[in-house]
Amino acid sequence: MLEARLSPTLLLKKIIEALKEIIAQGTLDCSDSGLQLQSMDNSHVSLVVLSLQSDCFVKYRCDRNVSLGLDLKSLAKVLKCANSDDTVTIKAIDKPDKIQLIFESDGKERTADYELKLLNLDQDHLGIPDTDYSCVVQLPSMEFARICRDMSMFSESLTIACSKQGIKFSANGDLGSANIQLSEGTKMDVTIEVKDPLTQTFAGRYLNTFTKATPLADRVKICLAPEVPLLVEYPIEDYGYIRYYLAPKVDDPDS
Amino acid sequence: MLEARLSPTLLLKKIIEALKEIIAQGTLDCSDSGLQLQSMDNSHVSLVVLSLQSDCFVKYRCDRNVSLGLDLKSLAKVLKCANSDDTVTIKAIDKPDKIQLIFESDGKERTADYELKLLNLDQDHLGIPDTDYSCVVQLPSMEFARICRDMSMFSESLTIACSKQGIKFSANGDLGSANIQLSEGTKMDVTIEVKDPLTQTFAGRYLNTFTKATPLADRVKICLAPEVPLLVEYPIEDYGYIRYYLAPKVDDPDS
Amino acid sequence: MLEARLSPTLLLKKIIEALKEIIAQGTLDCSDSGLQLQSMDNSHVSLVVLSLQSDCFVKYRCDRNVSLGLDLKSLAKVLKCANSDDTVTIKAIDKPDKIQLIFESDGKERTADYELKLLNLDQDHLGIPDTDYSCVVQLPSMEFARICRDMSMFSESLTIACSKQGIKFSANGDLGSANIQLSEGTKMDVTIEVKDPLTQTFAGRYLNTFTKATPLADRVKICLAPEVPLLVEYPIEDYGYIRYYLAPKVDDPDS
Repeated sequence: MLEARLSPTLLLKKIIEALKEIIAQGTLDCSDSGLQLQSMDNSHVSLVVLSLQSDCFVKYRCDRNVSLGLDLKSLAKVLKCANSDDTVTIKAIDKPDKIQLIFESDGKERTADYELKLLNLDQDHLGIPDTDYSCVVQLPSMEFARICRDMSMFSESLTIACSKQGIKFSANGDLGSANIQLSEGTKMDVTIEVKDPLTQTFAGRYLNTFTKATPLADRVKICLAPEVPLLVEYPIEDYGYIRYYLAPKVDDPDS
Repeated sequence: MLEARLSPTLLLKKIIEALKEIIAQGTLDCSDSGLQLQSMDNSHVSLVVLSLQSDCFVKYRCDRNVSLGLDLKSLAKVLKCANSDDTVTIKAIDKPDKIQLIFESDGKERTADYELKLLNLDQDHLGIPDTDYSCVVQLPSMEFARICRDMSMFSESLTIACSKQGIKFSANGDLGSANIQLSEGTKMDVTIEVKDPLTQTFAGRYLNTFTKATPLADRVKICLAPEVPLLVEYPIEDYGYIRYYLAPKVDDPDS
Repeated sequence: MLEARLSPTLLLKKIIEALKEIIAQGTLDCSDSGLQLQSMDNSHVSLVVLSLQSDCFVKYRCDRNVSLGLDLKSLAKVLKCANSDDTVTIKAIDKPDKIQLIFESDGKERTADYELKLLNLDQDHLGIPDTDYSCVVQLPSMEFARICRDMSMFSESLTIACSKQGIKFSANGDLGSANIQLSEGTKMDVTIEVKDPLTQTFAGRYLNTFTKATPLADRVKICLAPEVPLLVEYPIEDYGYIRYYLAPKVDDPDS
């Protein structure tokens, strides 16, 4: 059986809010070491990986590996019913057909428990090779979210150019053109590690859905390398992360 | 003639906001002792009663009984035009075809007056028998509103079970099941008086419309007894109340 | 060439937000003395004039007169991408087909530049004769916005009556009638100068769009005279103004 107790519930709310925008359903793999979820997004273009170590929980027990097929919108609805500072306990038996969530207020004057039906989902786990990235940029997650939003007004494509001088985001469209340049500095706290400068173009709408994870972390890490997918990582305190992978657009000589 | 002067306008705003969600039109009966409105909701399932004593008003004069047939959405529109801290004066002649509302700012630098046409409404007053309720629960009105909202995600029906241990709200549906349990205690300030434990099921959407009265009062009183309608009461300071009545669902052996 | 540097960007945001609701496209005439824009609204009923003196800018250079045909919704989109406390630099070459906007954060760790295509717009400049107004009323801009909004619930027409006693706004419709009266006083800070009392009626929906300029100024000036358009003026600090002109409705004996 699985029993995982987390305080406060707010952290779980943020995780599910981040995931539910990009995947409708997903399988949460629970093992002795913690929770893991890997899924392609709804349109099978980008990949999202959640990893949460067992020490993130006040109490964590998982006797046997168990896979929970979750409808994320339903789970988000249940989490909306919890107070952010409630303690949440997630329970499932071995070979479960449902999951139980128990929310307790401080002092236990209010307890709420919910049972959600589980789904039977096919899943293929992709092996994600370790990559030695050419460019690693860390910046405030709010700033990244805003840039993705602003650029999407100009074009469906967002070009990221990374060099020792800084990181530049560009978009061109009918409205006109837009360039936003960030350089390393103390005020905005941008750090840029560049082995080889690189310019890649991405579908902006996926980047925009990645930024639903913004409330999870103050800072986001963007990693680029030639001919491999972009990695956008939001750390979950010291206990794990949500990672998003998105392949760059292939240069089309006609476009 | 009727002349009733109330300060601040905010109280009247809250009363009309609470009523307009549940009844489109209603007759306000004005007498020497105060104002009274009784009406079935738009779908003729639940009953709402407003009572406001004359001492709620800074000035109150009602020479003869007068009935004002009000379109509540129109009245709410007019009240939206008033500042919350304005003083409002309601005026009507005997046998009126319109009502006058005068809003004055502190210092009277701004005065606004509105005339609203009255409606000719049929009305049957129901006699509401005094009931000796088995269970009387008082809880924060915000908490009750939230429970009704949360439960309505799970099912159209909300079951309330009341015992000396506490009050439990339950809902079951396609999404899964939900139970929220409140016990007496100091933190949330729930009080529970139970002569006989009782479990009844109600149509959640009516409970949800009742909770539009939440801004009127910090606390709400829920009264239950076998085979009589639920009473949900929001006190209006020491001057009256809005009461909602809703019959429990009859047990259907097929459901 | 034109180079105009303004700090903070917020002021430009407010100006464009005020204009974009009433005109879709407009020509900004830039000269050594500053910027000017004059345009009929989209339905060719009211007239709007923006005037901004060169000393509003931190740096201002305009070698030759240049006219910039702007799509105001596009410009507003670009301005949404700027931080309110950024410094903005507007650049255009002589005979330009595009305009450049450069936004710099304090410390320049973040710079964003946008190029917007310009439009070729026909424009007729109307000569606006100096008018000796019979009634000049100054009142809080928020109060004026609220009155226009509230009155529009009652009728498409808003009547303004101005006398030494005060200014009265009236509307009549199916819902009922509404009158709001403001008098001179210290609390709300209304000043009224009346040579001859006057009553005029206007199409409320234009007045409502004028009030989009409310964030620009704490106070608004309303000027009336017989048989000439109403003037509604929002000052832009000490550096200029947005003025709106709207002809009164001609008395229709049938209405």
